[in-house]
Amino acid sequence: MAESSIEAEILRQGRRIDPLLEELVPRGGPAHLAEIAWYHLETGGKRIRPALCLVTCEVLGGDSERALHFAAAVELLHNMLLLHDDIEDGDTVRRNKPTVWKAYGVGNAVNVGDYLLGRSLRAVMLSPLDDQTRGRLLDVFVETYGRTVEGQALDINSRSAPRFTVEDYLRTAVLKTGYYLVLGMIGGAIIAGAPEVTLKCLRRLGENMGPAFQIRDDLIDLTSGKGRGGVKGSDVREGKASILYAHALAHSMPAEQERLLDIMRKPRQETTGADVEWVVQLYERCGSIPFARNTAEALIHKVQDVLGNLPMEQQSSLRDLVAYLAERMS
Amino acid sequence: MAESSIEAEILRQGRRIDPLLEELVPRGGPAHLAEIAWYHLETGGKRIRPALCLVTCEVLGGDSERALHFAAAVELLHNMLLLHDDIEDGDTVRRNKPTVWKAYGVGNAVNVGDYLLGRSLRAVMLSPLDDQTRGRLLDVFVETYGRTVEGQALDINSRSAPRFTVEDYLRTAVLKTGYYLVLGMIGGAIIAGAPEVTLKCLRRLGENMGPAFQIRDDLIDLTSGKGRGGVKGSDVREGKASILYAHALAHSMPAEQERLLDIMRKPRQETTGADVEWVVQLYERCGSIPFARNTAEALIHKVQDVLGNLPMEQQSSLRDLVAYLAERMS
Repeated sequence: MAESSIEAEILRQGRRIDPLLEELVPRGGPAHLAEIAWYHLETGGKRIRPALCLVTCEVLGGDSERALHFAAAVELLHNMLLLHDDIEDGDTVRRNKPTVWKAYGVGNAVNVGDYLLGRSLRAVMLSPLDDQTRGRLLDVFVETYGRTVEGQALDINSRSAPRFTVEDYLRTAVLKTGYYLVLGMIGGAIIAGAPEVTLKCLRRLGENMGPAFQIRDDLIDLTSGKGRGGVKGSDVREGKASILYAHALAHSMPAEQERLLDIMRKPRQETTGADVEWVVQLYERCGSIPFARNTAEALIHKVQDVLGNLPMEQQSSLRDLVAYLAERMS
Repeated sequence: MAESSIEAEILRQGRRIDPLLEELVPRGGPAHLAEIAWYHLETGGKRIRPALCLVTCEVLGGDSERALHFAAAVELLHNMLLLHDDIEDGDTVRRNKPTVWKAYGVGNAVNVGDYLLGRSLRAVMLSPLDDQTRGRLLDVFVETYGRTVEGQALDINSRSAPRFTVEDYLRTAVLKTGYYLVLGMIGGAIIAGAPEVTLKCLRRLGENMGPAFQIRDDLIDLTSGKGRGGVKGSDVREGKASILYAHALAHSMPAEQERLLDIMRKPRQETTGADVEWVVQLYERCGSIPFARNTAEALIHKVQDVLGNLPMEQQSSLRDLVAYLAERMS
């Protein structure tokens, strides 16, 4: 399929869950929850995860009408995780709007995240499926949620860590982003009645795509600045343990390591433009940027290998999808 | 049953879930999650909620061995809610130890709460029961979680609200504390195969006991200080919308209302001892303290009425339990 038609298809599929989101999180719903939840949900997002759920279900021969609830659940979980993540990272801007904690306070942000999690669980439980399939969906949903939280714990506590390796980075990225990136796809596959070998393949897809996208995100921060108000190098200001940081730490001189750590540990507002510039130059001297690019490419190649294990007719559809994601997602 | 033997029974029943808690939240578990979770779980607590689950199951003729997972789930949910609540309220001390956000930072506190919620869901899902009963337990668990979050939203946003009535207070208390107080009992009853009329009775028990205990908590804050480092009047310092506040607001002169609001809105560290003293005296002038006591007593009487709807042999056991709770819990 041509890229533009894949994009149109993703957009079309993603929009299918909109009426269900309105039902699950009614705008006239509980005071101080519904309004704030919609402030966050409307910061946009391309509904890529629910679209992946529906497309995967169809590619594998399932009835995607029955996957709409799970697709909505995945979108709500995604937004809940972003909401809590913004508190945990102290991020003040998401998609060019103040983050929820910045706009409504930390208390409301924690609580609205909790609310969205409840609504996402409810969505899974309302799936129009037999008890056994619904049980399997709940199982994978709660399992994936747990792994993501585990990855988040590694991430929070690796800020400015003096010993942070590329392996630590990759392990964190797989847990934090890999599993829930493909949660929708796995749910779609379960609903389509796909065999265990397909589910395993999708899990391995996540284990490779998650870190690949995360690395891309790290690289974008050095160029266009992630749409966080267009500021470049915000990972450096925030002391985020990027792959560039992990690589440079292992490939620089002790004095450089010390200065790098000092800059990463500085409170955001004290980090100067010169500090960021110095770190970027260190990354360049250490070859961290091509290293990151190569690592991401190797992961994307692995994704292609993994897809090779699927039956031929499924391969080509999913390959198009993954290629599209590799271009657009971050 | 004599009160001391009820206490011994509650303690004995509560301890039964300890091995399961160790399995569900293994001490050697995920980095930065297990350790912090146990820091919080070990701040004590008498395991009253799981004990209520197991006792109720037995009183209603069920096999409480099968209720152990649900009892553990309720205890984990309780701790998750307290953990996020402490962030939302800015409380720095719980059970005479620094709260998790104070000890490990807000990021870890949010995330460890999320972790405990995942573990509590897993506990429900691991219950050794048929699919249908497990489905009903999940349903009531997620429903109750949602109501509690809804109550929390009202609570957070009613801080220092200029129009906050006793009705607002009671509605918040029912949502925030009423339903999940009896969640364990309802789960125990479902496992025992109790009829709908019993479940309804337990829900009404919560609707009355929750606010009764909340009012008691408000009153304790004016006397012994809730074990939050023994400081009295911390609700005033924190600007918490207690029943005393709601009552005094409706029964004082405009100038007093204004001063009351000013004091409640001051940041905690700027509130002086004289401010707290003035508010307490206002409560006394308005008759807010006897009003609160009478309201709590009326709620406890309603609990007794509600219990009157149960079969006689269940009535007496539950009556003893409730009487014990009314004495001890806050």
